[in-house]
Amino acid sequence: MSDLTSEEIARRAGDALWVRDKAAQSLGMELIAIGPGTATLAMTVAETMTNGHETAHGGFIFTLADTAFAFACNSHGLVTVAAQCSITYIRPGRAGDRLTATAREISRSGRSGIYDIQVTARDKVIAEFRGHSRTIGGSFVEGLADPKP
Amino acid sequence: MSDLTSEEIARRAGDALWVRDKAAQSLGMELIAIGPGTATLAMTVAETMTNGHETAHGGFIFTLADTAFAFACNSHGLVTVAAQCSITYIRPGRAGDRLTATAREISRSGRSGIYDIQVTARDKVIAEFRGHSRTIGGSFVEGLADPKP
Amino acid sequence: MSDLTSEEIARRAGDALWVRDKAAQSLGMELIAIGPGTATLAMTVAETMTNGHETAHGGFIFTLADTAFAFACNSHGLVTVAAQCSITYIRPGRAGDRLTATAREISRSGRSGIYDIQVTARDKVIAEFRGHSRTIGGSFVEGLADPKP
Amino acid sequence: MSDLTSEEIARRAGDALWVRDKAAQSLGMELIAIGPGTATLAMTVAETMTNGHETAHGGFIFTLADTAFAFACNSHGLVTVAAQCSITYIRPGRAGDRLTATAREISRSGRSGIYDIQVTARDKVIAEFRGHSRTIGGSFVEGLADPKP
Repeated sequence: MSDLTSEEIARRAGDALWVRDKAAQSLGMELIAIGPGTATLAMTVAETMTNGHETAHGGFIFTLADTAFAFACNSHGLVTVAAQCSITYIRPGRAGDRLTATAREISRSGRSGIYDIQVTARDKVIAEFRGHSRTIGGSFVEGLADPKP
Repeated sequence: MSDLTSEEIARRAGDALWVRDKAAQSLGMELIAIGPGTATLAMTVAETMTNGHETAHGGFIFTLADTAFAFACNSHGLVTVAAQCSITYIRPGRAGDRLTATAREISRSGRSGIYDIQVTARDKVIAEFRGHSRTIGGSFVEGLADPKP
Repeated sequence: MSDLTSEEIARRAGDALWVRDKAAQSLGMELIAIGPGTATLAMTVAETMTNGHETAHGGFIFTLADTAFAFACNSHGLVTVAAQCSITYIRPGRAGDRLTATAREISRSGRSGIYDIQVTARDKVIAEFRGHSRTIGGSFVEGLADPKP
Repeated sequence: MSDLTSEEIARRAGDALWVRDKAAQSLGMELIAIGPGTATLAMTVAETMTNGHETAHGGFIFTLADTAFAFACNSHGLVTVAAQCSITYIRPGRAGDRLTATAREISRSGRSGIYDIQVTARDKVIAEFRGHSRTIGGSFVEGLADPKP
């Protein structure tokens, strides 16, 4: 074990993930906050993220939510992957919109977790995402001894 | 009504969607086939599509599947949007993998549809996606009179 | 419109649904609370509700959650039906367990709503349920003029 | 290992599950067929299975589908439980309807499986169900040595 606080573990986990997450970087995401079981990221809808109906492609809204999910479920410092995710689209997003995805932990039991992510734009909810995670390995955070999940 | 066959409507719908789908183009997707209720697209996992664990970011796998879903559910020529989608990740994808997403129509009743999309890489299934669609408007295909959905 | 408060509409909606809900009654459910967008129901797991592995059959856990969902999404007095539901099982339930399902409204936009229902037993969460609803008609509550949803 | 065929394992698994499945019996279900990765069950919608809108309560439609899922995912003779399930309601069911649920295996990889179950009544699809399973233990079928799943 280590004497890191859970907030410090989350911060270090966020730093470690961010460096390696080329997808988040290439899409211009911003990591706004990370804590134990939580994460907030933002991204602006570029022209290249629109689809055949000229609204934000659902795939990019999903990708932002999925990234917030990944940061939140890895915030305990243990290698954790997405097993199953679902998204409901509530309102369309548009090019130029600043999207914010806020993830919170609903449940964590054994190796399985559930996280809810809300995506907003212009102060309105545009999508609700629920992610199911699975912890598959030990720690990826330096200074955190390798606890069994 | 029109005297276009359903295959011809699908082909025209695919052409119309493709031109406007900047997201699909910017990610380097290829539209391999489209028919009534079906669509197949492919995409290669670029380095910029990898995540914190160095595998293909689930968001991009989702985006490919979601695009196949969009082409399939719009293949009847009526403006149709995604309402709710879920994805299960079965195996990881890697940078360089050629992903293929194949969509088929499971159900279409009134304005609601269900589509299943299978994503494969190296001849193995890496993800199963189920999309729920909602038809919201008239035709977007030239030569197809505006039928009520 | 009417001058009923939203709490009064919810109470009347709950009464009206309860009388007709033979399924809830035959399973021995109890309606503990109903308010605008919320509902709480309880049920004891009978021997006849166990399955091949001798734990509570998921179908009955689902049915309790689904009923809480139905009461919550109909609490505004407009005829509303389930479109799509998902449930994640977190811990097994056992014969004799008193299950409580608590529903809350996550989103309501146009005719579409999202509700989250948590099912607990012995003070632990055993399942998380998310329901998507669709309002299909006018009011079923006496004294509530028929507003368009 | 054993020299039982996969069909014989499925038949024995079905017999073993059926005896213990008090829920299936108390609801009057009928096990019509079971094979490796597949199962078909039927049930008639009783008056006690209707809800506040006087159609078949979604919970009972779910329970039938969930039971077909359970038989299919346990048909390989290894103790397997539901992890997450989702259902989409396409048409209402009514009291007196004979419902048939047909399960088929979509994917099975390591301990995780995906099964799709279609529920029909009067030759029409009334619901589509997707279940995610998790194999948690050894064999429950007599004569089948305990293989690692």
